Amino acid sequence: MQLHQSTWQEVEIYLSQSKGIIIPIGSTEQHGPTGLIGTDAICAEKVAHGVGEETSAMVAPTINVGMALHHTAFPGTISLRPSTLILYVKDYLTSLARAGFKHFFFINGHGGNIATLKATFSECYDHFATLNIPDHDKIKCTVANWFMVRDVYMLAKELYGDQEGSHATPSEVALTQFVYPEMIKTAPLDKDVAKGHPIYGATNFRRCYPDGRMGSNPSLATPEHGQRFYELAVKNLAQSYLEFIS
Amino acid sequence: MQLHQSTWQEVEIYLSQSKGIIIPIGSTEQHGPTGLIGTDAICAEKVAHGVGEETSAMVAPTINVGMALHHTAFPGTISLRPSTLILYVKDYLTSLARAGFKHFFFINGHGGNIATLKATFSECYDHFATLNIPDHDKIKCTVANWFMVRDVYMLAKELYGDQEGSHATPSEVALTQFVYPEMIKTAPLDKDVAKGHPIYGATNFRRCYPDGRMGSNPSLATPEHGQRFYELAVKNLAQSYLEFIS
Amino acid sequence: MQLHQSTWQEVEIYLSQSKGIIIPIGSTEQHGPTGLIGTDAICAEKVAHGVGEETSAMVAPTINVGMALHHTAFPGTISLRPSTLILYVKDYLTSLARAGFKHFFFINGHGGNIATLKATFSECYDHFATLNIPDHDKIKCTVANWFMVRDVYMLAKELYGDQEGSHATPSEVALTQFVYPEMIKTAPLDKDVAKGHPIYGATNFRRCYPDGRMGSNPSLATPEHGQRFYELAVKNLAQSYLEFIS
Amino acid sequence: MQLHQSTWQEVEIYLSQSKGIIIPIGSTEQHGPTGLIGTDAICAEKVAHGVGEETSAMVAPTINVGMALHHTAFPGTISLRPSTLILYVKDYLTSLARAGFKHFFFINGHGGNIATLKATFSECYDHFATLNIPDHDKIKCTVANWFMVRDVYMLAKELYGDQEGSHATPSEVALTQFVYPEMIKTAPLDKDVAKGHPIYGATNFRRCYPDGRMGSNPSLATPEHGQRFYELAVKNLAQSYLEFIS
Amino acid sequence: MQLHQSTWQEVEIYLSQSKGIIIPIGSTEQHGPTGLIGTDAICAEKVAHGVGEETSAMVAPTINVGMALHHTAFPGTISLRPSTLILYVKDYLTSLARAGFKHFFFINGHGGNIATLKATFSECYDHFATLNIPDHDKIKCTVANWFMVRDVYMLAKELYGDQEGSHATPSEVALTQFVYPEMIKTAPLDKDVAKGHPIYGATNFRRCYPDGRMGSNPSLATPEHGQRFYELAVKNLAQSYLEFIS
Amino acid sequence: MQLHQSTWQEVEIYLSQSKGIIIPIGSTEQHGPTGLIGTDAICAEKVAHGVGEETSAMVAPTINVGMALHHTAFPGTISLRPSTLILYVKDYLTSLARAGFKHFFFINGHGGNIATLKATFSECYDHFATLNIPDHDKIKCTVANWFMVRDVYMLAKELYGDQEGSHATPSEVALTQFVYPEMIKTAPLDKDVAKGHPIYGATNFRRCYPDGRMGSNPSLATPEHGQRFYELAVKNLAQSYLEFIS
Ligand code: NI
Ligand code: NI
Ligand code: NI
Ligand code: NI
Ligand code: NI
Ligand code: NI
Repeated sequence: MQLHQSTWQEVEIYLSQSKGIIIPIGSTEQHGPTGLIGTDAICAEKVAHGVGEETSAMVAPTINVGMALHHTAFPGTISLRPSTLILYVKDYLTSLARAGFKHFFFINGHGGNIATLKATFSECYDHFATLNIPDHDKIKCTVANWFMVRDVYMLAKELYGDQEGSHATPSEVALTQFVYPEMIKTAPLDKDVAKGHPIYGATNFRRCYPDGRMGSNPSLATPEHGQRFYELAVKNLAQSYLEFIS
Repeated sequence: MQLHQSTWQEVEIYLSQSKGIIIPIGSTEQHGPTGLIGTDAICAEKVAHGVGEETSAMVAPTINVGMALHHTAFPGTISLRPSTLILYVKDYLTSLARAGFKHFFFINGHGGNIATLKATFSECYDHFATLNIPDHDKIKCTVANWFMVRDVYMLAKELYGDQEGSHATPSEVALTQFVYPEMIKTAPLDKDVAKGHPIYGATNFRRCYPDGRMGSNPSLATPEHGQRFYELAVKNLAQSYLEFIS
Repeated sequence: MQLHQSTWQEVEIYLSQSKGIIIPIGSTEQHGPTGLIGTDAICAEKVAHGVGEETSAMVAPTINVGMALHHTAFPGTISLRPSTLILYVKDYLTSLARAGFKHFFFINGHGGNIATLKATFSECYDHFATLNIPDHDKIKCTVANWFMVRDVYMLAKELYGDQEGSHATPSEVALTQFVYPEMIKTAPLDKDVAKGHPIYGATNFRRCYPDGRMGSNPSLATPEHGQRFYELAVKNLAQSYLEFIS
Repeated sequence: MQLHQSTWQEVEIYLSQSKGIIIPIGSTEQHGPTGLIGTDAICAEKVAHGVGEETSAMVAPTINVGMALHHTAFPGTISLRPSTLILYVKDYLTSLARAGFKHFFFINGHGGNIATLKATFSECYDHFATLNIPDHDKIKCTVANWFMVRDVYMLAKELYGDQEGSHATPSEVALTQFVYPEMIKTAPLDKDVAKGHPIYGATNFRRCYPDGRMGSNPSLATPEHGQRFYELAVKNLAQSYLEFIS
Repeated sequence: MQLHQSTWQEVEIYLSQSKGIIIPIGSTEQHGPTGLIGTDAICAEKVAHGVGEETSAMVAPTINVGMALHHTAFPGTISLRPSTLILYVKDYLTSLARAGFKHFFFINGHGGNIATLKATFSECYDHFATLNIPDHDKIKCTVANWFMVRDVYMLAKELYGDQEGSHATPSEVALTQFVYPEMIKTAPLDKDVAKGHPIYGATNFRRCYPDGRMGSNPSLATPEHGQRFYELAVKNLAQSYLEFIS
Repeated sequence: MQLHQSTWQEVEIYLSQSKGIIIPIGSTEQHGPTGLIGTDAICAEKVAHGVGEETSAMVAPTINVGMALHHTAFPGTISLRPSTLILYVKDYLTSLARAGFKHFFFINGHGGNIATLKATFSECYDHFATLNIPDHDKIKCTVANWFMVRDVYMLAKELYGDQEGSHATPSEVALTQFVYPEMIKTAPLDKDVAKGHPIYGATNFRRCYPDGRMGSNPSLATPEHGQRFYELAVKNLAQSYLEFIS
């Protein structure tokens, strides 16, 4: 049940039954020579919709631009500063909290969002208390990263070993191939892919990782793998969501 | 050509040929008893993708939450405050401007966004000058409202007359029906629909417009109408876009 | 009745009879070779004081610096960024709203203020609700542009035709001449005045409009015209104000 | 020479001769039962215009709303929060500094503005350096309080002794009477006027100072006194201004 | 070498030899019935000073108030909101970066700071690029948590097993006892200590953890343990610091 | 009684007896060739702890970074912008005010903090009222500058005459020598020390005051002097604190 495909009266009915909502959050950032710029948003949204169906949960609109400042030396990347993302999510949740939602379950597709999201949750609990939202002390936020789901992680290891890497990974590329099989990209990929450098600023990042990949070999990805990742992520996160709202 | 479905190297090539980009912006807000909460985002995105195809323009990710504070007394509405939307769009455009984009063409689905967007453009020109972005004095932003396209407006008048109203209109509902025919909603609609009240705060809005409609009769909408609106909007805005970037 | 010329006890008495207040808002910006930099503030203030007298309304202090970033490449222009103007007006109205004022009628002299003002109103309604100001749902803000009053607009067309232009217009210059007849400026004015360029950033604006005028011929202005504009504006806006507070 | 009564070309010429500008700053706040709410702005503006004439200095538009949060429990007071006033003055000075102004001489009518103004100056120097404004290291700001001018202070002591008090003083009321002789107010004034309480929040302030006066007896004021204060302030501040810009 | 105990000329010399600086960051928050409110700051500062001595690194002043909003239902806790902490650290690092420091090594005593610190680092890299700080692309920030140092963690497990818990732990209490042996506190401690609840808002936190401890038994702490933790932390973090700046 | 050395239960007991708290605030800034960068924080903290002991008052953690933008052209200086310091202190006091503290007594070691602190107090009173903190109208803030205590000032005049100067003064250096006798620095000091220049931006400051001193001769300082200053400051400020909270 997508919020965008519901009427306000359907939301009113939903709220009489559940206070939970799933919020997909991704990013708009380079994903190497063959990865889609929207990879993190596409994956988070797809998984979130799957979890929504599995659990009859409401799914809010995808936050498709996140915190990707370290990727901004590559064209096509769009990033919020962390301070802006905090304000954005605070306004977003405030609308929902005032309407009665209490359990905010973010399904995240981008590691770079995690720190800012957690900071935002702290900011929001305090803000809701300040606003005197009824039962504000019952409000809970959490972030679940589909790519960190244990089964997903194990499958990636099994399929790709070290070539999974940590950005523009075959697993996330596979999931986008499952979603958009007509958008599978090919490009020459250096065998010697950079890896192991810590992440600092954008210029440094591009110097360390000239084609945008971090230790990954996305040419291993297939749409079939993508489907398997999707199914594992949905199954596990559906479980997590139900525990979270219970 | 959607940014989210491109690689960064494709964006690099695109930028060697064009500095223009289309940015769909909608809202997440109640649209009466039968309108989808995502109506404004769905319409803006659909039209933007159509214009992108028609003109080979890059289409950026949809800004799906906008300025809808006056609708927040209805559950399901999510709104940014204007000051947050300014920061959000400023960060969004800064990433693109630093990468070399210069012509930002917003396709908008929500009247409530217009004032804040225009304020944002002013804020951004000044910001880009402060950042010393190369050729910042060539950067241009504009907002085109699909529902104000003359042909669209005339067709709505022809099909619905006064029953078009000004919110949760049959024309926008029709366009969402064209996009999601499986999501057509029905609900009893009072014949006596409120209209003519100026818009102030959220509580006042709901008091004035108890079911969320503003003078409209969305039950007149059909998917076929939606297709006609879509085609008129795309044809006209493609023309506008090409003039804008020329 | 000007707030600045009242005592707090007079305000207390006024509030027992009316919740309305008029707020003049102008700008500090170039107005071509012969227009005063304070034109928009001078006009808005003069008209506001006239309306105040006509309607016995309280008139608040003039907001004399507005949103004129696009004029900042001309010396003497002072502008707030939109985000600052929002905060400024929010604080300004918050003081008045806490004291019991409810109907805020802005009389505006500058087109560049309109978008930001409208964004501000939305921000304020939400803020007043958050502050739990008593009867916050009765608070209303509106902006009336003296130069868009129908009778004013018609007279400008009649007197100046196309030479009215859209900035540094003879009508606004005339009004300042009526207010400050000793400050009538003369300077050589190119017959070929730039016009028709959309407004983007400040550098671009000055390149498009080298002497600051936008399609206007302010040499047609006379103090007598100014008086007629003044009287038409006052008469009409007095009417608008009374409707607004009723 | 008032900025608001100049053209941009006159400003351009002025800047070729001087980098100095006078900025009147007042407040909109209760001034006891007989003092005008605009007292601080009226006095600052009048003195600033006098100094401007005396020194041929440009005078910028009056900042008529300042930091008066402690007076907000009295109706009619309008205050910015200090953080807003910082942003406001920063934008204001940034426009002027970019145009080439370097010496900002504030003539202030309200003690409550001083701390925030000084904080703002620090914020601005840093901001101008960040903006790389040419010769930003030559930019200077200062605030001169007309009521603290030694001669003014001595005259007040001489005329009123202890009854000068510290808010809604006969000296400032006298100056407004000189400016607006038709606006002289009368009201019963308790002989026992509160005094000596430190200033904390607004509610506390009104509890301590129930009629708004702080130890003053404004009924001693006359327009003739006002003229004497005016002349002393102008003479001394003209001197200060000339030293400041030299 | 503490920055606070150096002169600016000593700093100038230091910068000719090293670009690294250690920044202790703690928190001011309840630490159960026997833990000091300053525990996290005391530990971080002590360890940082030790690492500074070991490596001849400059140690900046301790950030003694951090992000502890979830502890604010207990008196004595002082917390910044994440958005404030971002601004605070940004200003802090900007001063140092402008002076030439490049390698910022935070030694952290509080888990609640980590997310916001990481968000801050991203915000700062972007800010330094915007400021055009020379060699801004060489600037690096990292956070090392003394309590997560492997050897520290192992010793805590060895000494306390499950009774280490996750807040108001015997290991951190031991370290404060080593620093301030005269400040060892005793209080009755329930044997049944709460544990396992996720952290949401402050009211919820206090309800879940009524005495402030999270699964810990701080009565096991001794100053001697504290010394061992201190030595392990210093030895390991000195190593980490030297790798970081190399 | 230091907050950092207390448990939350001790704070709870303290609050049942007193609502007062002492907050030391200093700065991290150059203090000439022989003064410690931490001088202002060291002095404020030492005096505050002394006052705390004398009066049994709680002493909060030292704010060791303040408003020192004008010193930032000297390496080692760390400064907040005034707008950041306002936010920082606002969050800091909000935590304490929510817990029940009402009387905030700042002991300050740096002249540059005063204006921003006073602005902050105004911002805070308004904020506490907005938050509806119980008895917010009883909250009081004040700042006491140890170096402006009359007896301290007189002793400095007596010991050093004109050579006290106004920054990097022998009196403050003496106090740091009393605190850290092992950290007494020596360096050649020009006899001709700059003085009398007003303070504007950082570059200008360093140009005017090349070695950082403002008219002072810190070589006159001795630890014994420092002890005398300390004792005078503590005795007087203990008295002030007791009056403040009574
Ligand atoms: Ni990714
Ligand atoms: Ni709509
Ligand atoms: Ni105008
Ligand atoms: Ni006054
Ligand atoms: Ni701890
Ligand atoms: Ni000092």
